[in-house]
Amino acid sequence: MIGPRAHGGNVGWAAAQANCPADAILDFSASISPLGPPQKCLEVIQSHLGLLRHYPDPEYQDLKQALSQFHQLPPEWIMPGNGSAELLTYAGRELSEQTATVLMTPAFGDYYRALTAYNVEVLEFPVFGEGRAGKMDLSTYQPLSSLPCSLLKFAHRRGLVLNNPHNPTGKLWTRLSILPLLQELPLVVVDEAFMDFLPPEKEQSLIPLIEEYPNLVILRSLTKFYSLPGLRLGYAISHPQRLKRWQSWRDPWSVNILASAAAIAALADKEFQQQSWEWLAPTRNNFLKKLSSLPGLLPIPSTANFLLVNSSKTGSQLQESLLKCHQILIRDCLSFSELDDRYFRVAVLSKDDNERLISALSSILSTGF
Amino acid sequence: MIGPRAHGGNVGWAAAQANCPADAILDFSASISPLGPPQKCLEVIQSHLGLLRHYPDPEYQDLKQALSQFHQLPPEWIMPGNGSAELLTYAGRELSEQTATVLMTPAFGDYYRALTAYNVEVLEFPVFGEGRAGKMDLSTYQPLSSLPCSLLKFAHRRGLVLNNPHNPTGKLWTRLSILPLLQELPLVVVDEAFMDFLPPEKEQSLIPLIEEYPNLVILRSLTKFYSLPGLRLGYAISHPQRLKRWQSWRDPWSVNILASAAAIAALADKEFQQQSWEWLAPTRNNFLKKLSSLPGLLPIPSTANFLLVNSSKTGSQLQESLLKCHQILIRDCLSFSELDDRYFRVAVLSKDDNERLISALSSILSTGF
Repeated sequence: MIGPRAHGGNVGWAAAQANCPADAILDFSASISPLGPPQKCLEVIQSHLGLLRHYPDPEYQDLKQALSQFHQLPPEWIMPGNGSAELLTYAGRELSEQTATVLMTPAFGDYYRALTAYNVEVLEFPVFGEGRAGKMDLSTYQPLSSLPCSLLKFAHRRGLVLNNPHNPTGKLWTRLSILPLLQELPLVVVDEAFMDFLPPEKEQSLIPLIEEYPNLVILRSLTKFYSLPGLRLGYAISHPQRLKRWQSWRDPWSVNILASAAAIAALADKEFQQQSWEWLAPTRNNFLKKLSSLPGLLPIPSTANFLLVNSSKTGSQLQESLLKCHQILIRDCLSFSELDDRYFRVAVLSKDDNERLISALSSILSTGF
Repeated sequence: MIGPRAHGGNVGWAAAQANCPADAILDFSASISPLGPPQKCLEVIQSHLGLLRHYPDPEYQDLKQALSQFHQLPPEWIMPGNGSAELLTYAGRELSEQTATVLMTPAFGDYYRALTAYNVEVLEFPVFGEGRAGKMDLSTYQPLSSLPCSLLKFAHRRGLVLNNPHNPTGKLWTRLSILPLLQELPLVVVDEAFMDFLPPEKEQSLIPLIEEYPNLVILRSLTKFYSLPGLRLGYAISHPQRLKRWQSWRDPWSVNILASAAAIAALADKEFQQQSWEWLAPTRNNFLKKLSSLPGLLPIPSTANFLLVNSSKTGSQLQESLLKCHQILIRDCLSFSELDDRYFRVAVLSKDDNERLISALSSILSTGF
């Protein structure tokens, strides 16, 4: 079973640790936007309650149509799922047909779960370079072009799972830097769960290239940017043949009716999208600056809605003190096996909430609680 | 992809055929209780909308606790799923470890999907005996004890999928008649999606025996009895070791937060359960009697909330006329491969709605529309 700290967002566990009700916890551990859910999504959920007595449309025509318009892609290239995590499982099943799969590390724990579920051999490739004493050098990312030939050799039929922007570092790879891998490898899965957080002029999604690469799978989530992780909604974008095959692996009603309706409303909410982009960059920069000013903390610049922080105090100690003394939940990084306990991850929340964390951290780092 | 008529409940497709809005369709095709959803479920969904910004608890502790109390079983024997259809997929994966799986036919189309998804060899065993001219004899069910030795031989490692009550016939097997199969076969999956519809003094669930049979999997649905198919909620009951293995095959957040909350409310709603039992038997008996009185229709007695009807006119012709002239959707049986087009299935709905179908059928059978 998944342990309480294997993923962020386990507020129930945190509340038990902090001995307080779940809604008293200030949650920095799950990388969810503080701006949502958009009011329009909540309205549409309310107005669809009467439809719960019907099965979802097994073709999800309306939802696919909305996604199709949003991404300017034919609907048959799109497959909605019960969170992108469901779709990751099918990626795992398909990757098991390769002899091994390269994973950029540190990596989201659920990648290992999906790959292990189908006995995929995992080849790890670190995103950071090596600094002094064999320690990760947080100031240098390894370029994708440095992926060793031994990992990629076509004859060996390698798959690749890439997370862009990368979780937990926030590193963004450019479209151009990924292209050579698409040209070389038989199956490339790019998880773009956090790509929505980048404004149109900065995003590096591979969606515009999808029709040229039948070996490409893109996974997207609607739950992070629109703050609806409890509802479960993601989608895969890939060649229609592959998606038909994936469909045969699962039941016909995998996305619930409320998630489907909320997704359509979310995609249409241009105002919410614009607000989110305007909020994120300055708030994150300010948060980064304030974290950097605290003794022993070294946050890494990020393009997404979270920050990875190197810390002279262990992440699990900080997590415990923040929970017990301040009812604040951060994400320790013990489940990212390459990161030791000198790291933690925090979501970018509202200015006031970020300040609350800064002041709690400041208190703990100077007085111990 | 699943075709529009492969399952019941595709109201969108029906509305297009009938050229009317979806909510104008009177739907007899999906076997969903007309009494629900219970008001308490809708209230709890409303009051949980504020939690959508959190991930579901990956342990589903509250939900498992409620199911554990309801069934008087330790929580680790229970695994909630995104509809029982999701869990059927894992049953398919596990059945692929047997050399073949026996399926009682006619069978729910999704069984074939789940078994085919993992290349399971299917051995079909008809629930009806054979009458004159090799035709099915609707008056005799084959007893389970007549399952031929060649199908069951332990040395061959056979699985079995049994649907109790059986869909689409409504046949109920007694606990006692299933026991010899449990003693003989290495893996028995019993889908009890419609068992809730039987009152406590009549039900034949295998749940009380689960702790004695590590080779038993029971699948249950909460969407039919409580009329929430749009929300997706089912659960599996089986040995904790098996459920841990299944959990490793899927992502940690498969049940959405609203489904989880609604399920807890539904299980506690004893009044709704009592009402449903009091409504079903007399309403079904009356409906059966009226259907029998129509020329050329032969409905089969059922223990569940639906009736399979043998018809001298083809099911697809009737379906078309009912849709186009009366905006009523029934389930043709073309996707049940052993049933030819002389069958259709109808849910038992409210007395008034059942009357509406009877009068529409009467009109079509006498005047053609």
